[in-house]
Amino acid sequence: MFRNDYSVGAHPYIIDEISKTNAIHTRGYGEDKFCEKAISLIKEHLQNEFVDIHFFVGGTQTNMTALSAFLRPHEGIISADTGHINLHETGAIEATGHTIIPVENKDGKISACQIQKVIDNHMPIHMTKPRLVYISNSTEYGTIYSKAELYAISDICKKNNLLLYIDGARLGVALTCEKNDLTMIDICNCVDAFYIGGTKNGAMFGEALVILNENLKEDFKYFIKQRGALLAKGRFLGIQFIKLFEHNLFYDLAQHANKMASQLSNGLEKLGFNLFIKTETNQIFVILTNEQHKKLSQIFDYEVWEPHEKGMVVRFVTSWATHLGDVEHLLKEIEKL
Amino acid sequence: MFRNDYSVGAHPYIIDEISKTNAIHTRGYGEDKFCEKAISLIKEHLQNEFVDIHFFVGGTQTNMTALSAFLRPHEGIISADTGHINLHETGAIEATGHTIIPVENKDGKISACQIQKVIDNHMPIHMTKPRLVYISNSTEYGTIYSKAELYAISDICKKNNLLLYIDGARLGVALTCEKNDLTMIDICNCVDAFYIGGTKNGAMFGEALVILNENLKEDFKYFIKQRGALLAKGRFLGIQFIKLFEHNLFYDLAQHANKMASQLSNGLEKLGFNLFIKTETNQIFVILTNEQHKKLSQIFDYEVWEPHEKGMVVRFVTSWATHLGDVEHLLKEIEKL
Amino acid sequence: MFRNDYSVGAHPYIIDEISKTNAIHTRGYGEDKFCEKAISLIKEHLQNEFVDIHFFVGGTQTNMTALSAFLRPHEGIISADTGHINLHETGAIEATGHTIIPVENKDGKISACQIQKVIDNHMPIHMTKPRLVYISNSTEYGTIYSKAELYAISDICKKNNLLLYIDGARLGVALTCEKNDLTMIDICNCVDAFYIGGTKNGAMFGEALVILNENLKEDFKYFIKQRGALLAKGRFLGIQFIKLFEHNLFYDLAQHANKMASQLSNGLEKLGFNLFIKTETNQIFVILTNEQHKKLSQIFDYEVWEPHEKGMVVRFVTSWATHLGDVEHLLKEIEKL
Amino acid sequence: MFRNDYSVGAHPYIIDEISKTNAIHTRGYGEDKFCEKAISLIKEHLQNEFVDIHFFVGGTQTNMTALSAFLRPHEGIISADTGHINLHETGAIEATGHTIIPVENKDGKISACQIQKVIDNHMPIHMTKPRLVYISNSTEYGTIYSKAELYAISDICKKNNLLLYIDGARLGVALTCEKNDLTMIDICNCVDAFYIGGTKNGAMFGEALVILNENLKEDFKYFIKQRGALLAKGRFLGIQFIKLFEHNLFYDLAQHANKMASQLSNGLEKLGFNLFIKTETNQIFVILTNEQHKKLSQIFDYEVWEPHEKGMVVRFVTSWATHLGDVEHLLKEIEKL
Repeated sequence: MFRNDYSVGAHPYIIDEISKTNAIHTRGYGEDKFCEKAISLIKEHLQNEFVDIHFFVGGTQTNMTALSAFLRPHEGIISADTGHINLHETGAIEATGHTIIPVENKDGKISACQIQKVIDNHMPIHMTKPRLVYISNSTEYGTIYSKAELYAISDICKKNNLLLYIDGARLGVALTCEKNDLTMIDICNCVDAFYIGGTKNGAMFGEALVILNENLKEDFKYFIKQRGALLAKGRFLGIQFIKLFEHNLFYDLAQHANKMASQLSNGLEKLGFNLFIKTETNQIFVILTNEQHKKLSQIFDYEVWEPHEKGMVVRFVTSWATHLGDVEHLLKEIEKL
Repeated sequence: MFRNDYSVGAHPYIIDEISKTNAIHTRGYGEDKFCEKAISLIKEHLQNEFVDIHFFVGGTQTNMTALSAFLRPHEGIISADTGHINLHETGAIEATGHTIIPVENKDGKISACQIQKVIDNHMPIHMTKPRLVYISNSTEYGTIYSKAELYAISDICKKNNLLLYIDGARLGVALTCEKNDLTMIDICNCVDAFYIGGTKNGAMFGEALVILNENLKEDFKYFIKQRGALLAKGRFLGIQFIKLFEHNLFYDLAQHANKMASQLSNGLEKLGFNLFIKTETNQIFVILTNEQHKKLSQIFDYEVWEPHEKGMVVRFVTSWATHLGDVEHLLKEIEKL
Repeated sequence: MFRNDYSVGAHPYIIDEISKTNAIHTRGYGEDKFCEKAISLIKEHLQNEFVDIHFFVGGTQTNMTALSAFLRPHEGIISADTGHINLHETGAIEATGHTIIPVENKDGKISACQIQKVIDNHMPIHMTKPRLVYISNSTEYGTIYSKAELYAISDICKKNNLLLYIDGARLGVALTCEKNDLTMIDICNCVDAFYIGGTKNGAMFGEALVILNENLKEDFKYFIKQRGALLAKGRFLGIQFIKLFEHNLFYDLAQHANKMASQLSNGLEKLGFNLFIKTETNQIFVILTNEQHKKLSQIFDYEVWEPHEKGMVVRFVTSWATHLGDVEHLLKEIEKL
Repeated sequence: MFRNDYSVGAHPYIIDEISKTNAIHTRGYGEDKFCEKAISLIKEHLQNEFVDIHFFVGGTQTNMTALSAFLRPHEGIISADTGHINLHETGAIEATGHTIIPVENKDGKISACQIQKVIDNHMPIHMTKPRLVYISNSTEYGTIYSKAELYAISDICKKNNLLLYIDGARLGVALTCEKNDLTMIDICNCVDAFYIGGTKNGAMFGEALVILNENLKEDFKYFIKQRGALLAKGRFLGIQFIKLFEHNLFYDLAQHANKMASQLSNGLEKLGFNLFIKTETNQIFVILTNEQHKKLSQIFDYEVWEPHEKGMVVRFVTSWATHLGDVEHLLKEIEKL
C-alpha cells in the first residue's frame, strides 16, 4: 500500500473515458483525434504551440528513445549517480550505445558546478564527449530542484553547448509540493526536452515527452517505432492525457499525494523517528531498526531502500489513491513499535 | 473501418474487468496475481507447465526484445523479405545489432528448402551466422502455414541447429480459419518461442511471448526491462489475457473476424473482382482500378497496398468488431462501382 | 598466388621507409609529422585542401566507422546486394545499429534509377529512412562505374538528400584500367566521402578516408577511437601513404595489376574459356568444369566463387606483385586442361 | 621521449623479419604459417595447448571485441574507475551495448572485497547483471597485482560466477618488475581470458588475446571480423609475435623498460621530488610545481596527468627504446630546476 505510486489501477475519470470511447474507430499509431486533442491541451498548458509532444507507455522507454535519438554515438550523458537511467534501468541507455558519466549526488541532485567540472576534465577523443545533462524532478530521493538551481544548470548547459533533459516521472509532485517555486514555463525556458509522467500520477500508463529544441524534433517518430514504443492503439495515450490536463486533474492528484506524504512525514517525526532525507514530495525515507521493520513489514507493504548503521532506510510512497485513513493506520501501527 | 484490426478499443469484457479490478493494490512490473493467473491459464491451454510466459505491449517490442535476447552478436535471422521485422519495424532488429537475411516470400511464406539454401551458401566468419528462422502466422499477406509446412521447417531448423520463432501478431485468425490444420500443441512441438497476439484480437494492447527452449529462458526479465518493455502496472496485461483465455474469447473473436472476411471475400469474387491473394484469414487483398479506388475511398477507410498493372492492390481487414452490416454495406457500395 | 591481391607483404619502398624511420620519436595516435605529410600529399593530389583525411587499418573498419558516424540511428544504407558491407563484413554495419537496404546488382553495380525506386517505395516511420548510397569502385565483380553512371547517381542522391559514399578498397585498379573515364576530381565532385584503398594496392595495411561534406567532419576522430580503429603508432599509416602518393606509386602498382589481369583474361579467352563477367580490372571470373578445377587447384591457389551450370565460377586476382611469368605459367597449365 | 612507450617504431628484430619475409605468399586473415607458429610459441610458453589465441592490432580493439563477444546484452563489467575501458576508450564498450560498473580504485587496483560488494548490492532485473571483472596489469597507474591479490579476485569471481579478464597492454613490465611474484601460469590459472600487449613492448602493433574458458571460444573469429579487427595481411601480427616469443624478447624488452624506470624514479627521489604513486613498473608519476613543469616541458616531452595542490602530477614513461643516457639527461635537467 505504501510500496509505490503505481500499485492501483488508474483514476476513475480515465477508466470511464476509456470505456465511453471504446467503440469509436480511429487511425492507429497515435494519428487519432484523441492524441491530437491531448497534444493541443498540453501545448495550451505550456503556453507554447511550437513544442513537439510524443506519448510513451513508460519512463525507461521514454528515456531510452529520446536520449538515443538526441545524441550522436560518441556523445555521453551527465547524470547523478543515483539517476534512474544510471542505476535502475538495466543499462537501457548503454544498450543504445551511449555512456553515462555519473556525478556524485547530493540528496539526489547535482549542481551546475559539478557539470562544469566534468567539462573541464574532459579529454577530447579519448573520452566520450559530454553532451547532455539528465536530471530528475522530483529526484529518486523525492527532493526537488529550486528555480535558482534549475536556471543555474540551464546556464552552464547553454554556455557549454550541452542539452538539458528532465525526467519527469514524478513531475506532478515536484511542481505541487510546498517548497516548490518552479513552473512548467520555467522548465520550458530551461530545458531542451522533458517528460510529464502520467503512470505515477493517476494514469494507467503514459508519459508525455515535450521537445522544445528545434534541432531535436526532426524524424522523431521513426525512433518511437524503432524502439518498439509506437502503440498500435495510440488513442489510449491520448485519452488519458486529455483527462489529466482537461480540468487540472494532473495537479490535483499530485497535490493530494504530497498532502498525504506531509501528514505521514510529520507524524513520523512527532513519533521520534529519524528521516533519512527531509521529505519534500511523496516519498518518505525513514530509518527503522531491524526489529521495527520486522514487525511493521508484516502489516504493511513498503520498500527497503538501503542498510543503515541503526538498521535500515525504508521508503513509504503516497499517491493520488492514498486515503487519510491509510496514513493514520500506518502511523498508529508505527506508534506501537 | 476496414483499415486494420486495431481501430476500435478493446472487447467490452476486458474493459469491464479493468474497471472492476481498478482499486485493488498490486505489486508492480508484472509480479501480481493477475499476471500469475493469466500465465497459469495460458500454460493450461498449451498443456505445458514448463514454458515461460512474458507479456509485452506490442509486437515490435516483443520481436526486438526476444530476438536480441536469443542471439549472440554475430548471429542473424532468416526471414521472408515481406516479414514484419524486415520491412515494417524501422530497423528495430538491426538497431539491436543483428542482421536479417531476407528470403524471397511466396504469398508471404518461406519454405524449409529455402532455409537449407541459406545454410548451404553461408561463408563462415565473413557472413553473419544464420541462427534463427522468423516466420509470421498468419503472414503479412494473410496466408497460413499448414501443419506439414511448419513441421518441415522445424525439422530443417533442428537439423541445422537453428532456432524457430513465430510472430503471432495474428495467430488467432491463423488457428481458427477454415483451411487451418495446426494447433497450439503443434506450434509448441515445433518452435523455440512464439508470441500470441492480443492487440489485433480484442485486447487494448498485449502480446504473450511463450518460450519453450530451456536455453532461452535464463535472465529473460532483464531484457524486458532493458528494452523499455517492463510495464509498471503490469497487471493490465495480466487482466487482459485472463479474459482472453478464460472462456475461449481469444478464439471466438478470431473466428468472427475470419467469418466476416470470408463473407467479404466471397462477395467480392461474386461481384467479379480479382483477389491479389486467395483469402485465408482476416486480410483481403483485392485489385481495384484507380477509378474504383477513387470512389470507394471516399466512403470507406482501407489501406492501399501496392501498385498493380490494372490499378492497385488494396487491403480490407476485418476484426472481432466488424459487423455483418458493415460487410454488407461495403459490398453494396462496391457493387455500384 | 592468384587467390587475392593481399597475399604478399608490402611494396619494398614502403618496407624500406618504415625501416629507415624506425628510431624517430613521434606523438601517438596519428598526430605525427608522417601522417601530416601524407595528408598534405593526398590533398594536393585531390586538388582540394578542405577535405578531411583519416587513416584506417582495413576496409571493414573504415566502412563501419565512417557509415555509423555519418548516420542517425533510423537511417539506412542503400547498397548492391553484392556490396561488401552487405555480404562479406559479418554484419559489421548492422552491429552499429543500421539497416542495409539491398538492391539487385547488375555486374556488381547499381543505377540511379534503382535508387530512385527505393526512395519512391519508402513508407515513413515504419521503414528505416534511406539516407546513404554505398557503392564500390571497382565493384566486388571487378567492374567499374563510368563517369556518366557516377554523375547520374550523384544527381539522384543530391535530389533526394542522400549521401553518397564510395568503398575504394580497389580504387587504384578502377582508376587505371583501360575502360575508365573517371578521375579523382570527378569522385570529389560526386561523393560526400570515399576511401582510397592501400591494403590491396601495395601497402602493409591502410585505407585513407576522405570526407568532403562539411557536415560529416565534426568530431570524427572520436569515432575512430570508439570503434577501436585509432592506431597507437599511427605513424605507420602516414609513412605508407607518403610512399604511395609521393611518386605516383599508387597508380603505377594498380596499372601493373590491371596489365597482368588483361594478359591473363585475354589468354583465357583465346584458349576458349568463357568469362563469367567481362574483365575490367584485376579480378578475372572464369567458368571451369569441375574436372578442370580439380586439376588446376592442385597447382594454383585461387578462389571458388559460386556454382555454375557448367561447373563453377572461379576467381583469379592479379596485383602489383604478380609477375608476367606467373601469368604465363598459369596460362600454360590451363592450356593443358 | 618520455611521453609514452609507443613513440618509436618497433624493435629492429621485428622490422628485419618483416622485411625478410616480405615476398612470401600467404593466405589472408591470419590463416597463415606465421600466425600458426606464433600461436604455437605462445601456447608452449603458457604450457597450455588448449587455449585459443587471436591477434589484434590494438588494445581498445581487443577489449571491445572480446568483452562484447563474452557477454549477453544485459551483462555488465566491473572495473576500476580508472580502468582503461572506463576512462580512456571513448565509450567503446558502451557502444557495443554494455554497462561498466565502476569501482573506486586504490592506486589503480580493485580488491576481491569490492567485487563482492557490487554483487551484494545488485538488484535483479532493474540493474545490469555484473558478469565480468576487468583489471589491468600493470594498471593505469603502473602498479601491479600480487599473486595473493589475483588469486583472491579469482576466487571471488568463481564463487559468484563472474568471468575474469586481464587487460595486459603492459603485461610485460608487470611480469618483469622487481616487486612481481606472478607468472603467466598463475594468470592462466586465474582468468577466463587476457591479452599480452605487444604495441607498448616493442611491436609495431599487436596484442595477443588468450582465451582459456572453453565456453568463450566458440565462433570467436566471427566477432573479430564483425568489429573490423580482422587484418587482411594477418601475417604481420604472426611475424611480430614470433619474434617476441622466440628468444625471450618480450621479457627482455620489458625488463629494460623497468630498469630505466627504476633508475629514473630513484634519481627523482634522491633529488627530493615526491612521487605521486610509488613506482613499480615503467610509469613514473611525480609531483612538479608549475614553475618546474614550465621549464622542463620546454626540453622534454611527457604527459601532464592531473592537477595537484603543489602544482601538478606529471608522468614519465620508459620503454625498451629508452637509453640510459636519456634518463641521465632528464635527471640532470631536473636537478637544475
